[in-house]
Amino acid sequence: MLEHVAISRAIIESYMKELLNSLRLDVAIVGAGPSGMVAAYYLAKGGAKVAIFEKKLSIGGGIWGGGMGFNKVVVQEEAREILDEFGITYEEFEPGLYVADAIEVATTIASKTVKAGAKIFNMVEVEDLVVKEGRVSGVVVNWTPVRMTGLHVDPLTVEAKFVIDSTGHGAQITQHLLRRGLIEKVPGEGPMWAEMGERLTVEHTKEVFPGLYVTGMAANAVAGAPRMGPIFGGMFLSGRKAAMEILQKLRA
Amino acid sequence: MLEHVAISRAIIESYMKELLNSLRLDVAIVGAGPSGMVAAYYLAKGGAKVAIFEKKLSIGGGIWGGGMGFNKVVVQEEAREILDEFGITYEEFEPGLYVADAIEVATTIASKTVKAGAKIFNMVEVEDLVVKEGRVSGVVVNWTPVRMTGLHVDPLTVEAKFVIDSTGHGAQITQHLLRRGLIEKVPGEGPMWAEMGERLTVEHTKEVFPGLYVTGMAANAVAGAPRMGPIFGGMFLSGRKAAMEILQKLRA
Amino acid sequence: MLEHVAISRAIIESYMKELLNSLRLDVAIVGAGPSGMVAAYYLAKGGAKVAIFEKKLSIGGGIWGGGMGFNKVVVQEEAREILDEFGITYEEFEPGLYVADAIEVATTIASKTVKAGAKIFNMVEVEDLVVKEGRVSGVVVNWTPVRMTGLHVDPLTVEAKFVIDSTGHGAQITQHLLRRGLIEKVPGEGPMWAEMGERLTVEHTKEVFPGLYVTGMAANAVAGAPRMGPIFGGMFLSGRKAAMEILQKLRA
Amino acid sequence: MLEHVAISRAIIESYMKELLNSLRLDVAIVGAGPSGMVAAYYLAKGGAKVAIFEKKLSIGGGIWGGGMGFNKVVVQEEAREILDEFGITYEEFEPGLYVADAIEVATTIASKTVKAGAKIFNMVEVEDLVVKEGRVSGVVVNWTPVRMTGLHVDPLTVEAKFVIDSTGHGAQITQHLLRRGLIEKVPGEGPMWAEMGERLTVEHTKEVFPGLYVTGMAANAVAGAPRMGPIFGGMFLSGRKAAMEILQKLRA
Amino acid sequence: MLEHVAISRAIIESYMKELLNSLRLDVAIVGAGPSGMVAAYYLAKGGAKVAIFEKKLSIGGGIWGGGMGFNKVVVQEEAREILDEFGITYEEFEPGLYVADAIEVATTIASKTVKAGAKIFNMVEVEDLVVKEGRVSGVVVNWTPVRMTGLHVDPLTVEAKFVIDSTGHGAQITQHLLRRGLIEKVPGEGPMWAEMGERLTVEHTKEVFPGLYVTGMAANAVAGAPRMGPIFGGMFLSGRKAAMEILQKLRA
Amino acid sequence: MLEHVAISRAIIESYMKELLNSLRLDVAIVGAGPSGMVAAYYLAKGGAKVAIFEKKLSIGGGIWGGGMGFNKVVVQEEAREILDEFGITYEEFEPGLYVADAIEVATTIASKTVKAGAKIFNMVEVEDLVVKEGRVSGVVVNWTPVRMTGLHVDPLTVEAKFVIDSTGHGAQITQHLLRRGLIEKVPGEGPMWAEMGERLTVEHTKEVFPGLYVTGMAANAVAGAPRMGPIFGGMFLSGRKAAMEILQKLRA
Amino acid sequence: MLEHVAISRAIIESYMKELLNSLRLDVAIVGAGPSGMVAAYYLAKGGAKVAIFEKKLSIGGGIWGGGMGFNKVVVQEEAREILDEFGITYEEFEPGLYVADAIEVATTIASKTVKAGAKIFNMVEVEDLVVKEGRVSGVVVNWTPVRMTGLHVDPLTVEAKFVIDSTGHGAQITQHLLRRGLIEKVPGEGPMWAEMGERLTVEHTKEVFPGLYVTGMAANAVAGAPRMGPIFGGMFLSGRKAAMEILQKLRA
Amino acid sequence: MLEHVAISRAIIESYMKELLNSLRLDVAIVGAGPSGMVAAYYLAKGGAKVAIFEKKLSIGGGIWGGGMGFNKVVVQEEAREILDEFGITYEEFEPGLYVADAIEVATTIASKTVKAGAKIFNMVEVEDLVVKEGRVSGVVVNWTPVRMTGLHVDPLTVEAKFVIDSTGHGAQITQHLLRRGLIEKVPGEGPMWAEMGERLTVEHTKEVFPGLYVTGMAANAVAGAPRMGPIFGGMFLSGRKAAMEILQKLRA
Repeated sequence: MLEHVAISRAIIESYMKELLNSLRLDVAIVGAGPSGMVAAYYLAKGGAKVAIFEKKLSIGGGIWGGGMGFNKVVVQEEAREILDEFGITYEEFEPGLYVADAIEVATTIASKTVKAGAKIFNMVEVEDLVVKEGRVSGVVVNWTPVRMTGLHVDPLTVEAKFVIDSTGHGAQITQHLLRRGLIEKVPGEGPMWAEMGERLTVEHTKEVFPGLYVTGMAANAVAGAPRMGPIFGGMFLSGRKAAMEILQKLRA
Repeated sequence: MLEHVAISRAIIESYMKELLNSLRLDVAIVGAGPSGMVAAYYLAKGGAKVAIFEKKLSIGGGIWGGGMGFNKVVVQEEAREILDEFGITYEEFEPGLYVADAIEVATTIASKTVKAGAKIFNMVEVEDLVVKEGRVSGVVVNWTPVRMTGLHVDPLTVEAKFVIDSTGHGAQITQHLLRRGLIEKVPGEGPMWAEMGERLTVEHTKEVFPGLYVTGMAANAVAGAPRMGPIFGGMFLSGRKAAMEILQKLRA
Repeated sequence: MLEHVAISRAIIESYMKELLNSLRLDVAIVGAGPSGMVAAYYLAKGGAKVAIFEKKLSIGGGIWGGGMGFNKVVVQEEAREILDEFGITYEEFEPGLYVADAIEVATTIASKTVKAGAKIFNMVEVEDLVVKEGRVSGVVVNWTPVRMTGLHVDPLTVEAKFVIDSTGHGAQITQHLLRRGLIEKVPGEGPMWAEMGERLTVEHTKEVFPGLYVTGMAANAVAGAPRMGPIFGGMFLSGRKAAMEILQKLRA
Repeated sequence: MLEHVAISRAIIESYMKELLNSLRLDVAIVGAGPSGMVAAYYLAKGGAKVAIFEKKLSIGGGIWGGGMGFNKVVVQEEAREILDEFGITYEEFEPGLYVADAIEVATTIASKTVKAGAKIFNMVEVEDLVVKEGRVSGVVVNWTPVRMTGLHVDPLTVEAKFVIDSTGHGAQITQHLLRRGLIEKVPGEGPMWAEMGERLTVEHTKEVFPGLYVTGMAANAVAGAPRMGPIFGGMFLSGRKAAMEILQKLRA
Repeated sequence: MLEHVAISRAIIESYMKELLNSLRLDVAIVGAGPSGMVAAYYLAKGGAKVAIFEKKLSIGGGIWGGGMGFNKVVVQEEAREILDEFGITYEEFEPGLYVADAIEVATTIASKTVKAGAKIFNMVEVEDLVVKEGRVSGVVVNWTPVRMTGLHVDPLTVEAKFVIDSTGHGAQITQHLLRRGLIEKVPGEGPMWAEMGERLTVEHTKEVFPGLYVTGMAANAVAGAPRMGPIFGGMFLSGRKAAMEILQKLRA
Repeated sequence: MLEHVAISRAIIESYMKELLNSLRLDVAIVGAGPSGMVAAYYLAKGGAKVAIFEKKLSIGGGIWGGGMGFNKVVVQEEAREILDEFGITYEEFEPGLYVADAIEVATTIASKTVKAGAKIFNMVEVEDLVVKEGRVSGVVVNWTPVRMTGLHVDPLTVEAKFVIDSTGHGAQITQHLLRRGLIEKVPGEGPMWAEMGERLTVEHTKEVFPGLYVTGMAANAVAGAPRMGPIFGGMFLSGRKAAMEILQKLRA
Repeated sequence: MLEHVAISRAIIESYMKELLNSLRLDVAIVGAGPSGMVAAYYLAKGGAKVAIFEKKLSIGGGIWGGGMGFNKVVVQEEAREILDEFGITYEEFEPGLYVADAIEVATTIASKTVKAGAKIFNMVEVEDLVVKEGRVSGVVVNWTPVRMTGLHVDPLTVEAKFVIDSTGHGAQITQHLLRRGLIEKVPGEGPMWAEMGERLTVEHTKEVFPGLYVTGMAANAVAGAPRMGPIFGGMFLSGRKAAMEILQKLRA
Repeated sequence: MLEHVAISRAIIESYMKELLNSLRLDVAIVGAGPSGMVAAYYLAKGGAKVAIFEKKLSIGGGIWGGGMGFNKVVVQEEAREILDEFGITYEEFEPGLYVADAIEVATTIASKTVKAGAKIFNMVEVEDLVVKEGRVSGVVVNWTPVRMTGLHVDPLTVEAKFVIDSTGHGAQITQHLLRRGLIEKVPGEGPMWAEMGERLTVEHTKEVFPGLYVTGMAANAVAGAPRMGPIFGGMFLSGRKAAMEILQKLRA
């Protein structure tokens, strides 16, 4: 027989176990877009304790809408192996240019990332950073609807050895350092230039402040590099690059 | 070299091919929630030409938030085999009651549904039905943001042999018949009673008007049966039941 | 030399002359959509004193967006001659089905309608009807932004021998009679069925209350007939039919 | 017999053909106001491949409302020949000052511009520019309602040899260069002075950055020149001037 | 040394213990206004396991604002002993009519109610009832900000032997039964008549459906009895009366 | 020397004296529009203790905007003497039809009404009536901004021998009786018919429930009589008629 | 017999005559608050052709609400003669400090100002200035609801020898010069200090740019002088001072 | 017998007595959060005449929501004695770290503060400061709903020897000095670091401008010190420190 109290208890207890277990992380990732999820996937596979905090209810960031809502996305040759890693179907549109279904891309990456061991906390917004003795060492979290409604409710704090800002072109996490003068500037993404943007998003993926990495469009925004539209190879490679560098440091 | 025009063309051409290909369907499903996606999965596996129209950018309906945002969902014994069919991880909370990660559930079902051959059109709202000679024979679709902004833009029409209303407790598709007096009443979901609600959602999954099926909470809303909260077994079984019945009729 | 006062005077004086001249009309048309403009065109050509009151700044109603914003519209064989009358370019898509550019359609009809002698008052909303001794005999008008902002400002009144409700599926002018119990019901448009809807919109174009005509989707809404989507032949024919009937009565 | 699928196909196929055909343009014009449409008209007549991207559903910009909604507009002697070119009716208010119906002006120019071969994409917003190797070489486009609703959906890209910013006093396209520091300043329009404003809008019509022209009020905004109110001669002459200069460069 | 993780853990663990402990209650009270808190106080003192669910962040309902924001409230002779029970300061305005500070009243009652052992869950909205076999047997709860933002998130369920609707004149909890046809009507509060309203609010405090009590203005709304303004004696007596009756039934 | 405390005290003390003095009135008038102010003027002149409660900051109702914001109003022969009574300037437009400046009309009537001894409480909304033993005997008042912001703040009560509903076509005060079933119906104003509307507004000025008078458009709304636009003679005569009848009853 | 067309014509014609007559003014005053109306009164009495443009429907600015909505205002000895000039009733609160009814103050001043010959255009917003050859020489006006709704409608222009900015602490008219760099700064009002503020508002009343005067709080805002709360003597004296200075210059 | 007029009079008279009595204070505290209420408590106990102005209807600031709505708060060893002073229940979570119920904390402190003699004016916003001869000497107050609705209503003024800004991280009162250039900068709170934040909030509690103290998060915002999340010891100690220093100065 189905009991209401059992259903409520099952949900509360299993969630709280994971929440308490996530208060001290190796890596806290902000934003479950393409670069954030790919980073989480490789970090989890590499044995790190990792959680993603995503302010929306759903994951996927800008993948869902393809271009102008035509829900297809493009991936170039350099990143094809990541489509293969996740088992995503694709078609070759012209040599070196592949088209995939946006919904399959978003959901397959998320599904595999969770199965790999990364915990995703959705509807949870990172409203600030923990900065201790000159190093980012955690995130300050709250329910998204609390922030949306402007209710006066304090956040909670999660400690992490590394934080990844994968919030896209707003680079919202890095902005918290900017407004305190801890970093000098965040010029924002440059005008559209797909080829250059794709190359630079990987190049600019790095630790921009002790303890804080930037990936994907956040990397380009922090560097003032071009935007690129509905092509996702650079996002994937950026996420993997950040994961690999952090794993090395964690092991050091 | 990455060309902007190639990226734009790749997306437009591959999307339009699918859109034109979906103007005449076996089954048009409205709402990419749990029962709608499970129905699409089994229909596609059964060889039907099927598309889901989802008004949000993301799929998953009410799965993402678990209970009160504690992102875990519960499934009972009767539906465990569907978790297994999709390869979703779960834990036994007490005998016959299983807990799974909400994000893994939502994304894994969607990923497998697309791979099975169902096309999902997201950010597309079904604003009305086609009714010809007393039979529902298609859906009237528009971009969701067009409706949200109140812009005066006409829809397009998609023909289908069957339409499934899997829009949840609002039964929004069935409402289009109600306000024209084509069906008599939609009492809406009853108060919470998980056990009864789970049983009845499967029982009430049926063709409520020639050409129109209801599944999941829409089935209970049309029948005035109880709601059930963050337990999803009934949703899954309802979706599968509708798929099986329709497949039989399509083959007839 | 360009003088500010001359510019202001030129505009105020020429507008006010037309406004004062329009306080007593043969026909007041509400809504500058396809059926309303076509009616105005034929009425003006037939020598009637006619003005259109349009609540938006721009004319054209639902023409601009084509279907889902793909800005093309469809016209069937029966109404091709009206495209020719206005000199609108079109292509044959399949036998008897023509496609035209939505923007060319909207602007060409409006341009020709004004040139034919019909005055269009845009940004002016008809907020009520004049009803004297059981006959509609005018419209009650106000600036649209006044209504939108809820400011408490009285309207002005325009007398007319006939009023045409060409406000689309809302049949907003006929609603003013409905809420006073002067007509019995306005069932609203039925579900989509293009062929039937096109046929019935012409059939239902008629005087529904002494002094009040309905055209286009308003005619179908008052009759409970089907909607038809981005095909405009019926709209055009409805507008012309109303014009012809009213001209006859005016001459009687 | 009218088939729904045929109507949908006719619209989708004819639109998509034009959209694909417009991915590589000679000139992309942003804003279907008076200067943008006049520029498009002369460019199309001159044989250039040109499209206008207009964020609203309707074209016409500030023409519709005349002055304070009194829907009349004024044109001075210098631009009378353009009224004649388009076949617009006008009256002489005082020597050298002509008054025309705002609706006739807006719709006649648009009608003739489309017939001349320019494609207008309405409800499409230019959200950024393509800048490659120091030259503006295209526009980044999205559905307006997507931007209005804040949905997270990537844009598409259109390549063009020249871009015209005819977005009015906001100079919204030139702003994209300003916030990246690619141009130094956009002081905005000066206070009202009709005579000076009319003269300067033509004078300031020019290429302000490699590949980017400004016309109409955008030209005055970029130069800090006066505004002029509901007189449109300068707008028309500015559009024609930009067209003539670009045609020369395209032929070079 | 203060550790972030310790602070987070302290809060999460102590809250979750109380939440899990409250999934099965003797009495669930909806609304922490005057009648609801007084009922909770006497129930807790009487040994019942009781929790209040309050949709706002703060408790107190209509007490804070006194009359028109003049933050004083009035209590009549009959209820003076309840002011004394809570130790609230008051002054005699005229014989039998006492004035107290609104803030002292609201906060003192809440403080004493919590100390008496009642748990208050604030920012938690009761969105529906549990009804099993014709008896109200619990409440369906969700975070208020989730409801305010319209996010699609399922609720959780709390079982209770009795539910008290102390939501004020909206009688929001009883409305859930009304819209399912489980009770016949909720006429709403009558016009102002303080004396009659005060008397009837106590008289109408009762079990209106198996398992569901109404108190305070909700009692008058369900009975169609008069409202009474910023006098609170009736509220207090109503809360105490409900508590006493329920305690008796719980002990039975 | 100007002291802040003296300024604050002067305002608070003089207002509170009037507020306390107005808690028991002969006549409470709701709405400082034309009929309400004229009624107050004659009542005050007749020696009655009268106050107007006006929900806006400013008085005047629909007078300010004239017709469509052209700030002139029209008065017919029958009411010319009331213009003279208040000393308002006017011009004869045609025999028996006078035009006056809307601002002069609104402010002169208000100025004279206050000087005559009527107190106007602005920014105060009447949110309900006092009904004791089948007779309206007062009004329930609150600050308008409190209602606008939805803050939960109780009102205060003012007793009155008579209440006048001069709230215009909404008849908002009479609606409070309607929703309690104390009167049978409020059909609302009929379509425009100036001549009939002007005549009937005076005819329908009467006591519609023991203790409650209706005047102006509220009288027509309660009777279902026509509206009349920016002509104010009927309003003035209605206000005077109500005042005269009530004075007689007060003296009885 | 009352004819609709006669009513409409009476209003349109009499308004338009005044509007056309006001296109060339001696003084254009922006804002019908206390200092603007007093200035208009003395200017009109002095024989100047003057109009006030007020963005709200009603006049009076901050007078209506007294202090915190307690609708009484305070006037000190120095300005008592202006109360007498307008015939406003007042009481002495303490030596040299007078209290008056806010509604009587606002409406009596307005009534007398219109009677003195000043035209007030309400619901008309001044959205910019005319600046020719370094001198303010007119205002740019539009309907307020047009601006509120963001509709794209051009303004009209009114020429004036002098413009008075009496828009209060925002000094909204002077801001138009500030953002063009024509004046250096508008520091805004200083913190509260009634005595100092009252003194300085008169002192700072002056021509701040050729052709532009500031009065009342706008004068203090431009000078960075203190605010003063609900005391109005300074406002009155400032308005009179501006009027006197301008009259002298006009006569020069 | 309960009389409406008696209830209204009781409330108005007792409130106005307190309001008039509070126009000249020893200390005006802005914000009824933890530091403000604790300061008021100790000031009142020390014999000062003190009032709190709180813009919300309810008191308590950020206490109610605990962390993320889990309504528990944490207090460290150093501040335990203040919990004891107020008689608040708590549990030891780990050595030196105590957990208390958020609702009990908020309401108990408020209840005791009012009983100690401090008057709390809720729904009253401090919109500015009085600054005379270089010293803060009072606050400028208005109803919160007036500000929320943007109604144009002047404030009233309260004189005070000292003002405390306890408005939290916005330091809204100190901002009034900043925008007049009276203090140099308000850097805002730094990133999260609980231990450091708790220590510094006490350290930075001080007189930042003659007559103006800052406490709690406002102290850290003015100093640019770290935020600390749902731990309240520092808030309590800051409030007590400010009280003690001010008492000393008042006695001097």
